[in-house]
Amino acid sequence: MSISTTIIIRLEIRKSITSFGDVASKIATAGGDIVAIDVIRAGKDVTTRDITVNVLDAGNEDVVSELSEMAGIKVINVSDRTFLAHLGGKIEVTPKMPIKNREDLSQVYTPGVARVCTAIAEDPSKAYSLTMKRNTVAVVTDGTAVLGLGDIGPEAAMPVMEGKAMLFKQLAGIDAFPLCLNTKDPDEIVSIIKAVSPGFGGINLEDISSPRCFEIERRLAAELDIPVFHDDQHGTAIVALAGLLNALKVVGKSIATVRIVVIGIGAAGVSICNLLLAAGASHIAAVDREGILRRGVEYSHAEWLRLAEVTNEEGLVGGLTEAIKGADVFIGVSGGGVLTIDHVKSMAPDRIVFAMANPNPEIEPELAEPYVRVLATGRSDYPNQINNVLCFPGIFRGALDCRARTVNLEMKLAAAQAIASVVQEDELNEQYIIPSIFNEKVVEQVRIAVIKAAIATDMARRIPKDLIS
Amino acid sequence: MSISTTIIIRLEIRKSITSFGDVASKIATAGGDIVAIDVIRAGKDVTTRDITVNVLDAGNEDVVSELSEMAGIKVINVSDRTFLAHLGGKIEVTPKMPIKNREDLSQVYTPGVARVCTAIAEDPSKAYSLTMKRNTVAVVTDGTAVLGLGDIGPEAAMPVMEGKAMLFKQLAGIDAFPLCLNTKDPDEIVSIIKAVSPGFGGINLEDISSPRCFEIERRLAAELDIPVFHDDQHGTAIVALAGLLNALKVVGKSIATVRIVVIGIGAAGVSICNLLLAAGASHIAAVDREGILRRGVEYSHAEWLRLAEVTNEEGLVGGLTEAIKGADVFIGVSGGGVLTIDHVKSMAPDRIVFAMANPNPEIEPELAEPYVRVLATGRSDYPNQINNVLCFPGIFRGALDCRARTVNLEMKLAAAQAIASVVQEDELNEQYIIPSIFNEKVVEQVRIAVIKAAIATDMARRIPKDLIS
Repeated sequence: MSISTTIIIRLEIRKSITSFGDVASKIATAGGDIVAIDVIRAGKDVTTRDITVNVLDAGNEDVVSELSEMAGIKVINVSDRTFLAHLGGKIEVTPKMPIKNREDLSQVYTPGVARVCTAIAEDPSKAYSLTMKRNTVAVVTDGTAVLGLGDIGPEAAMPVMEGKAMLFKQLAGIDAFPLCLNTKDPDEIVSIIKAVSPGFGGINLEDISSPRCFEIERRLAAELDIPVFHDDQHGTAIVALAGLLNALKVVGKSIATVRIVVIGIGAAGVSICNLLLAAGASHIAAVDREGILRRGVEYSHAEWLRLAEVTNEEGLVGGLTEAIKGADVFIGVSGGGVLTIDHVKSMAPDRIVFAMANPNPEIEPELAEPYVRVLATGRSDYPNQINNVLCFPGIFRGALDCRARTVNLEMKLAAAQAIASVVQEDELNEQYIIPSIFNEKVVEQVRIAVIKAAIATDMARRIPKDLIS
Repeated sequence: MSISTTIIIRLEIRKSITSFGDVASKIATAGGDIVAIDVIRAGKDVTTRDITVNVLDAGNEDVVSELSEMAGIKVINVSDRTFLAHLGGKIEVTPKMPIKNREDLSQVYTPGVARVCTAIAEDPSKAYSLTMKRNTVAVVTDGTAVLGLGDIGPEAAMPVMEGKAMLFKQLAGIDAFPLCLNTKDPDEIVSIIKAVSPGFGGINLEDISSPRCFEIERRLAAELDIPVFHDDQHGTAIVALAGLLNALKVVGKSIATVRIVVIGIGAAGVSICNLLLAAGASHIAAVDREGILRRGVEYSHAEWLRLAEVTNEEGLVGGLTEAIKGADVFIGVSGGGVLTIDHVKSMAPDRIVFAMANPNPEIEPELAEPYVRVLATGRSDYPNQINNVLCFPGIFRGALDCRARTVNLEMKLAAAQAIASVVQEDELNEQYIIPSIFNEKVVEQVRIAVIKAAIATDMARRIPKDLIS
């Protein structure tokens, strides 16, 4: 599957030789789709225009080379809109108010600021009211598991973390700042995050490879009194559970009785299994390269050993083929193409398939569609996109607003139920089990659910005004 | 000396019993100065007003208690403007562009961002063009030497670092982010800063106590290829040198021949001595608690041992009294009140006194004034304020714009000369040796000087367009 790209081509058109109409048809013939035209300079004979064109990645070269060969056309420059959007970075750090004069300066900086510092020194909990801490999240990665690209290093991870910070602010008003660490050592990562934590109200771990991510998160959660949340694990799990709750409603089955296969027991897979169990699932087969996890096998991976104890109660032996026979639900967070038509056909009726591998799902949606009742993917170009963006803004908004000490299982479950509940009963259908990431109700409903769960489990240090009953 | 504060008093005034005129005179009698009045609610008999009042810190209680006792007056609430300015913090992290739709999202986040990540993974230097790195500075402290408050910890240091970030953005367009570290161990501080460095174009060390600050900066400068600058050392030294260069012009003396006493050989004092030597000074007496530094004494402090070798060429023995006799210049970065009138009287004619201790100078300006030609302090309520704000925005703007590998002595000297040069020859006088921090020429002139010095010493990785000759 290819992803379309937008490029901007700056052209000089010599009107005596060719016309813009010719240019437009040439672009269309080469597979490009004109999105916008801007006139940069209009001379008597020569005009310069910026033409914004959607092209398939592969077709990019074609459009430009065909244009270059036209008589009367000179290609000045080709820019890629995605790269243009990244020039100089995507976020900035801005003052909330201007410093207009000496009096302003003496309030926000020396000498006036000293009184504020002293107040915090006497009572460090005042950092929540008198600094940015209460609204600030560190987005921390070591660049070892970025998107589907793997270990590309801290510099190359920056664009993802900046994008995440944009979403935090736009969707939830949270000030998120990327910290891309030049170390892969779990001990060092833990001590760095602990050391920088005074200025932050929460820690979003991101794109840290498995199994190191489990240890890092567990130690931080134990040692810090602010929420620590590895989005690749729990964000994915929460949104998948939200989708599954609604999918089960569509097909009229209960989470307690369905047989569920989860394939790909890495960061996301482990958290999905845990959250499904917490939500009441009792028949889970967790499948990875070594087959269906089962009791008695000496896995080197601590999380697998633990999961083997609480899943596969039937003691199934084998791989995906054995696990999926008669299953009601398939949840894939593995790799492209691992699920075949025959696998799908062997499932129980009213099949639910979440093929969430990115960018290529476990099965091509077009292939699976005739055989399944509800299909979801991680992609935006099909219905039912399971996207973490539905979770992290709201879960952190809630956790920050009640100054939660942690993000526990109850808060995660509540977030999943809240996301599911945004889709109203009368809207719910096979093609619409999960809200759009632009649905404005999502963040607020997740926030409220998370705060209530934090209060109920005694993890909130503060009850926001709007939730005091 | 006390610092005035602004408070906002919310009052209910019952008009049948008292008038606003009575309120105003009561505030004046109690020592308050009304700055602004806002009507919040105006009823038939009762009006609610916010009255903004300047008070001396000590008088705060008086104004409020006197008002409380007035008939027909109810004090609803008293807010402190400085604290109000700090509520929820002073800076935020904002996207440079909104994400309006799925297409925007797919450019700044997955899947489109993957192409940008890949480009950086293939060539990490592209982080300078495709991420926020090129415009971003970490403001790092461990909270051990904050203002004059000492070791108040990382949370309490936040308001200063946020204030600094505001100034970075407003004055130089730089995105600065505070990292307040919960550790005092130099090894750990060095390794944390190295680990977070991929996302930053420069490191501003702040309020780290001496002598640890020297080791931390030296190791980071050696191990990182981005500028590392401890502002308490070099910012102070650069601005002091700028002021001194102009003060010497005023009195018609040369830096090569004047006798200079520097008192307080901590972070700022060490850097001042180094920079004075680099600027051509040859007669410096560096004075601290153990007296005038001199050869042959076994100081425990490595910087003192080094300075003893290159200062006090006459081998003076004693303390401030011995050092200052016949001196042309006094530079104080020590504590309030250490300089007496008799000390000043013992100096050579055309005395230059920089009494920069904060908040209380080495000598009360009013006491010193009759005996000195040029007087400078660290305070904003006297002429000639030696303020770091004149330096750090411009020096980092220059260093970032040329992607400097470091901030070397040549760049610091150039910055001092640039700050001095903002005061024109015909403006220069005893009361005006240093520009205002709101003078818009400062940042640009420092920037240009720093870039030229970086290019000349082969420390620039890029020549900005406006400086290509």
